[in-house]
Amino acid sequence: MLFKKSKKLLLLSRLRYRTGRIRCRWVVVAISLFIATASFAQEKTRLAVRSYRIANEHKILQEFVELLAIPNLAGDIVNIRRNAGLLTQMLQKRGVQTRLLEHDRPEVPPVVFGELKTPGAKETLVLYCHYDGQPTDSSRWVESKPWQPVIRTNSIEAGGKILPFPRTGESIDGNWRVYARAASDDKSPIVVLFAAMDALRANKIQPTVNLKFFFEGEEEAGSPNLSDIMRKHADLLKADMWITCDGPIHQNGQKLVFFGCRGIVSAEITVYGSNRALHSGHYGNWAPNPAMMLSELVASMKDENGRVVVDGFYNDVEPLGEFENQALAESPVYDQTLMRELGFTKPEGGGKSLNEQINLPSLNVSGLLSGYVGAQSRTLVPATATARIDMRLVKGNDPQRQVERLKEHIRKQGYFIVDKDPDQETRARYSLISKITTSDGYKAFRTPMNLPIAQKIVAAVQSASDGKVVRMPTLGGSGPLSIFAEFTGSPQMGVPIVNYDNNQHSENENVRIQNLWDGIEIYASIMTMK
Amino acid sequence: MLFKKSKKLLLLSRLRYRTGRIRCRWVVVAISLFIATASFAQEKTRLAVRSYRIANEHKILQEFVELLAIPNLAGDIVNIRRNAGLLTQMLQKRGVQTRLLEHDRPEVPPVVFGELKTPGAKETLVLYCHYDGQPTDSSRWVESKPWQPVIRTNSIEAGGKILPFPRTGESIDGNWRVYARAASDDKSPIVVLFAAMDALRANKIQPTVNLKFFFEGEEEAGSPNLSDIMRKHADLLKADMWITCDGPIHQNGQKLVFFGCRGIVSAEITVYGSNRALHSGHYGNWAPNPAMMLSELVASMKDENGRVVVDGFYNDVEPLGEFENQALAESPVYDQTLMRELGFTKPEGGGKSLNEQINLPSLNVSGLLSGYVGAQSRTLVPATATARIDMRLVKGNDPQRQVERLKEHIRKQGYFIVDKDPDQETRARYSLISKITTSDGYKAFRTPMNLPIAQKIVAAVQSASDGKVVRMPTLGGSGPLSIFAEFTGSPQMGVPIVNYDNNQHSENENVRIQNLWDGIEIYASIMTMK
Repeated sequence: MLFKKSKKLLLLSRLRYRTGRIRCRWVVVAISLFIATASFAQEKTRLAVRSYRIANEHKILQEFVELLAIPNLAGDIVNIRRNAGLLTQMLQKRGVQTRLLEHDRPEVPPVVFGELKTPGAKETLVLYCHYDGQPTDSSRWVESKPWQPVIRTNSIEAGGKILPFPRTGESIDGNWRVYARAASDDKSPIVVLFAAMDALRANKIQPTVNLKFFFEGEEEAGSPNLSDIMRKHADLLKADMWITCDGPIHQNGQKLVFFGCRGIVSAEITVYGSNRALHSGHYGNWAPNPAMMLSELVASMKDENGRVVVDGFYNDVEPLGEFENQALAESPVYDQTLMRELGFTKPEGGGKSLNEQINLPSLNVSGLLSGYVGAQSRTLVPATATARIDMRLVKGNDPQRQVERLKEHIRKQGYFIVDKDPDQETRARYSLISKITTSDGYKAFRTPMNLPIAQKIVAAVQSASDGKVVRMPTLGGSGPLSIFAEFTGSPQMGVPIVNYDNNQHSENENVRIQNLWDGIEIYASIMTMK
Repeated sequence: MLFKKSKKLLLLSRLRYRTGRIRCRWVVVAISLFIATASFAQEKTRLAVRSYRIANEHKILQEFVELLAIPNLAGDIVNIRRNAGLLTQMLQKRGVQTRLLEHDRPEVPPVVFGELKTPGAKETLVLYCHYDGQPTDSSRWVESKPWQPVIRTNSIEAGGKILPFPRTGESIDGNWRVYARAASDDKSPIVVLFAAMDALRANKIQPTVNLKFFFEGEEEAGSPNLSDIMRKHADLLKADMWITCDGPIHQNGQKLVFFGCRGIVSAEITVYGSNRALHSGHYGNWAPNPAMMLSELVASMKDENGRVVVDGFYNDVEPLGEFENQALAESPVYDQTLMRELGFTKPEGGGKSLNEQINLPSLNVSGLLSGYVGAQSRTLVPATATARIDMRLVKGNDPQRQVERLKEHIRKQGYFIVDKDPDQETRARYSLISKITTSDGYKAFRTPMNLPIAQKIVAAVQSASDGKVVRMPTLGGSGPLSIFAEFTGSPQMGVPIVNYDNNQHSENENVRIQNLWDGIEIYASIMTMK
């Protein structure tokens, strides 16, 4: 790999020479030699890290599985604290100074914080991961359980079968997958960071930067207490760059860095019929049906192309800059392949690409519930119907302003809005009643792509990657980057490592083992970036 | 009561006399005397039955509770057979000859059939009840469980508190309620029939008719095997009238008879997005969202007044006859009171009354499910969304023709219809895919209201009721009367006894104890009708 790169640099210098820019020639050669030397050092690190990994795959997986076996719902404080305890031990084992950053209320998941100083280093990176996972329906996992990790020969969709856990000495295939809640989101980067540190230390390679670790325990619950914790511990959190170790790499397998995340705010909308469910024969089509009302309300939010028709929904969007547009233009277009794989032929968005859509605010219905379907179904007029909606935000959007627009839209459909279940008096006064509860949410955040330290990190990721690294102005997903930025004043970027088809947030979450291996090389490269 | 009635008859004879119809005078007086004698006999029976009931309330409740304690989902064949066994014993104890009418497949709930002949009786009545109950969510019962009956001082909505089961000698308030699955629908009429027989026997009063008992075990599952069982045992089922002992009395407390039931057919509709749930940040508003698609589809089925806009939906409706229209005109109008009590101000139907609406076919959404709401919610684009729909049918409607109209409507919205989950090939071919599964359903049935034996039964119910008995051409609810009629050729009517606010089909089902007591008098009167 190194040879190929040096050759490319040499070709570059020749090209410049031939175009007649003679004055530049020696400068270009000098720079090329410098880059070649740096490249050589980085390649050496990469190979050393790889050798370490190959010799220690079982140990790394063992540590991963140990961490995955602890349930990690943000609301389950007992297990959350078991996770935090184990992570503290795991950091300390690597010489990291740790502490738990606690909220004033002990039922709030603590942040596991760690610090590893490098003598003489001038730059400090914070590596952010979260150790909590999304809620999940245990009964919908295929042949395994969320917190009983198993290894499969491939993804379930590709016919992967469960294997006995490989014993020391047995070879491990990079295409195998580990299935468990948080296997990809977001415990794998944690274990990858640990392995990267171990690999550097085993090879006596010093990091070039100071490292801080910030492992959050309630990201999947919407980080409701993160601001409080950051405010309380702001002095610990200063850094030259926060790196979010979360999210998937590109669908086509190319490595990826992102410079921002969308914000998010959620709303739950309940509409009301009678004050109790009624026999559909005796009362159906006379008593108001909230399932029908909700369908009409939800359908009113978008046009036939999936464009959100809530007034002002797209008003605040800050346009992308030159660098961002260029990076987007250079991003691989993969929509057709993805559509084939995901099994649909007509995307939402009236012809806009996935890349275009994730740079716009979105309105997604993530849940509908009214009455019963399937084996539980009953011939009733339901009493209520509920929809869950998440709205992703781009730069310029404000969560509460977006919520207010949604509420205004619902009012325009004739609804009186309440914040708790209506009593008989409220019911007697209004013919259409909707309860809306919303999260606080947080804004989107974007770091300028031309920031020098950001460029260094991109170079580090590139040097540990075989193909061209994709640069995304923003991730489609959300992360509390705006909160980090508010309390630390640091720029923010993200370096994801996991496969895109990881069933993140859904049942049967998994990570492809080769993505762990590649991730170790990427993060070792970042820790030793030039 | 008897006195009041005789006085009324006397007034009637005087009135006729005064209008100058002298020839009629003696005839009217003779008839009046005959009716008065009959009335006297009926009133005597009523009082005797009441005395028996007052002396045996604890015993009756005990038997009721014993029956309610056995789980009774049609799919739970072990418990269904326990119910059938107990019912057989309870019938035999009353001298009824019993047998189980079995389907060829032993996993089908049997009909508990019984016969009690009356020497010299010319007419035979079949008394139909069902002993299975609707599925229920145990966790949503307040302070009790579906099959652990409790007694409350009133309805939960009216603040009723759970009481210890009254011991012999302790008085029982008629406003108390028994809470359990099937407490009203439909085990209470069964126990009422038993008590009516006991009360007659204790008072040495002979029934005037032959009685057959037909207790079905899978009505709430849509009676899928009832036709088979009836075909197999058609010779047993001949009668002069089938009486369905099911459904509630009028909301205002007036006793009620009905001459038909609506038919029913159900459809479950699933629409598809991607072949798996996707992260709403990375894919939302690009991947198709089935929750949004389903909302649009469901919303397309009705106009703003709740009128079904599925083409031809109201086409086959047979208009009501003169007697039916007259009975409807005489029915109490109770809509405003009901709306107040049920907590809504604007009914569906664009101004049509509840009575008008239940004489039309209906389309009711009884369930919506996609992704997750509430504590389980996740930021996903769901993979599927499902709606459950029940359609009630009136005379003239055919279940499968109505289903075909619904399917045609769904096709018109652009959907390709499948009957199982689509594979990748189907997904690649069609942009909108909908899986539709439907029940067989059954037609509506109506007995002409002027049939002589029907009039006799109305008179029997009237003689055991204090206020005017409401005559409904059809019940809003469904019962397989059309199947009974097809296999027996008998006319059909229904005599309900339970309170309307019984949470039938929902959680916290209950029956008001006074309704049981009144029911015993009504059925004793029918068994001894003149």
